[in-house]
Amino acid sequence: VVLRRTYENQNCSIARSLETIGERWTLLILRDAFLGTRRFDDFQKSLGVARNVLTVRLKSLVDAGLLERRRYQERPDRYEYRLTEKGIDLYPTLVALMAWGDRYLNEDDAAPLELEHRDCGSPVHLALVCDAGHELSGAREVRPVPRPAAAAG
Amino acid sequence: VVLRRTYENQNCSIARSLETIGERWTLLILRDAFLGTRRFDDFQKSLGVARNVLTVRLKSLVDAGLLERRRYQERPDRYEYRLTEKGIDLYPTLVALMAWGDRYLNEDDAAPLELEHRDCGSPVHLALVCDAGHELSGAREVRPVPRPAAAAG
Repeated sequence: VVLRRTYENQNCSIARSLETIGERWTLLILRDAFLGTRRFDDFQKSLGVARNVLTVRLKSLVDAGLLERRRYQERPDRYEYRLTEKGIDLYPTLVALMAWGDRYLNEDDAAPLELEHRDCGSPVHLALVCDAGHELSGAREVRPVPRPAAAAG
Repeated sequence: VVLRRTYENQNCSIARSLETIGERWTLLILRDAFLGTRRFDDFQKSLGVARNVLTVRLKSLVDAGLLERRRYQERPDRYEYRLTEKGIDLYPTLVALMAWGDRYLNEDDAAPLELEHRDCGSPVHLALVCDAGHELSGAREVRPVPRPAAAAG
């Protein structure tokens, strides 16, 4: 509550993003969706969360525009949950979290999952690149600059 | 609690990462650290959080190895908080969240902050690239592959 109040005073895209997807269950549901899960029962099995809780969480993801609820069968009606474009665009966030966890939080030093480029089979990673084509090694090579419009606002 | 229990059954770097940094205040403190904030009072002003709450949160970030508490003055002793390498390596996660928020959550369509390459001044963005040098357009071009060791475990 304390933080939520301050978000309103902050012109910050990270704060706004966390307001939408800051609960960790959100990102775990999206993770499963990226791995191909679409149906309620499969989310439920993967997450091990109570059905009523999962219902609320899926609804909030639909309300936030990250998942779309789509009927795939009639009589009885059955629905599945598909990533929207807005949801799909959270992929780099999940890849970044995965890479960090791979590096720092794996006891046995073996990352559970590898990401491959579908076309060529090579391992995929996130890179910081600039429009001039340089690949940056990290945060120290980046300078954050307030945008004029934002500074005036 | 329900989710935490399932984490233990999941060999997943995203789940593990969220256990460490899944609370949104964690990422907002790190955001401020990346923007140069080091001192308790400056974090407190930026986040608008109660001092006792901030003390607990900073301590948990130090305990998790994301921030280092360093004395910068004696008599009276004063401390500042500096990002560790483990903390710095969360930068891509924050950049990914920022880019997503810039795209979907800015009412006035102007991103508050731009990231520039220090060396050349060009805008910086996150890219999915493969080891063969291709830049991928997004999640659909990525195939997740369980690693043999993880599959056997």
